Amino acid sequence: MRISELVDRTGVPLATVKYYLREGLLMPGQATGATQADYDDAHVERLGLIRALIDVAGLSVKRAKAVIDVIEHPESDLVRTIGRALEELPPYGGSDAAEYPRAKRAIEALGQVYDPDYAAVAQLERALAAAEAAGVPMTDDRLRAYGGAIMELAEFDIGNMSTTDPADAVKYAVLGTALYEPVIAAMRRLAHQDAVYRALGGSS
Amino acid sequence: MRISELVDRTGVPLATVKYYLREGLLMPGQATGATQADYDDAHVERLGLIRALIDVAGLSVKRAKAVIDVIEHPESDLVRTIGRALEELPPYGGSDAAEYPRAKRAIEALGQVYDPDYAAVAQLERALAAAEAAGVPMTDDRLRAYGGAIMELAEFDIGNMSTTDPADAVKYAVLGTALYEPVIAAMRRLAHQDAVYRALGGSS
Repeated sequence: MRISELVDRTGVPLATVKYYLREGLLMPGQATGATQADYDDAHVERLGLIRALIDVAGLSVKRAKAVIDVIEHPESDLVRTIGRALEELPPYGGSDAAEYPRAKRAIEALGQVYDPDYAAVAQLERALAAAEAAGVPMTDDRLRAYGGAIMELAEFDIGNMSTTDPADAVKYAVLGTALYEPVIAAMRRLAHQDAVYRALGGSS
Repeated sequence: MRISELVDRTGVPLATVKYYLREGLLMPGQATGATQADYDDAHVERLGLIRALIDVAGLSVKRAKAVIDVIEHPESDLVRTIGRALEELPPYGGSDAAEYPRAKRAIEALGQVYDPDYAAVAQLERALAAAEAAGVPMTDDRLRAYGGAIMELAEFDIGNMSTTDPADAVKYAVLGTALYEPVIAAMRRLAHQDAVYRALGGSS
């Protein structure tokens, strides 16, 4: 299809499509003349991913480009590949600390893999330190209860992920992380409300 | 104790303590003279809460004041009281819609209480709409799996909450929501990593 049809089908304005082409987020079409190129369904799909990353998940163009680079050049190790893509998602923050004592202790208590290079380790350390500073430190009981429930969420997520196609796996991991964290936060607030109703003996 | 000792014990600068007094976040001390007042442990504790809300949870002074107003003037209904306090937490966003079709469907499918006035309902609607727009809509399977795991988290939280002292319950709900959502998000990312290792047959 011509670029004008790509604009029609996706609703992305022509100037924006050209910008994504220049920045390398959208792959070039097949040249059909000096100033014309042919686009296909892969371009429609890519534009959908770019809009999801930028407009819905709130990534900068630079970070969206980094995610797409990972999709186009996956490493042979799928865990590393996904880890690199997830580093482009918020929250951003210094991860140059040498040690993550709270995170290490929690991860090891849960019997999970501890890899300080994985960005979520620094993220957990900051979150645990903040809870501690606010006077509501993580307890062993809470860690155990949360760990089990959160592993259930994660097992479902990974059970539905392709482990053979790295591009699909990265897309799924990035969108599933960026877009389902807010869903989970809202669902937990609503579950609290429901649980309080029941704790107070109200009918729900 | 004198205000200077309150400053020493909490590490909150004198000018900040005076500002919180003026704004009504910190309750006045017991007057002991024309320009002196006596403070006690309740003031130390309140300053800890104010710092947690503002410095750690990132609330504005105005929103922290609103949380404290709820603590000082709870409604007779504990669910409403907590709901009012939780409205001061991010994410903020228009909740003037008349209907929340995606949230309503999800909440009813889970058999939970649907109360469109509860801020988390609008929050869930926005999160589900964003996931849908990004091409990863909530499925029935995912809703069921998430619903069960998230209710486990919530049951633990509520099981550890005072249902007799509204002030304690509000503090616990606000800090537990603001400070544990980032912990849960980080733990889920780490559980993903662990589950991928295991799915790929790696040793963890």
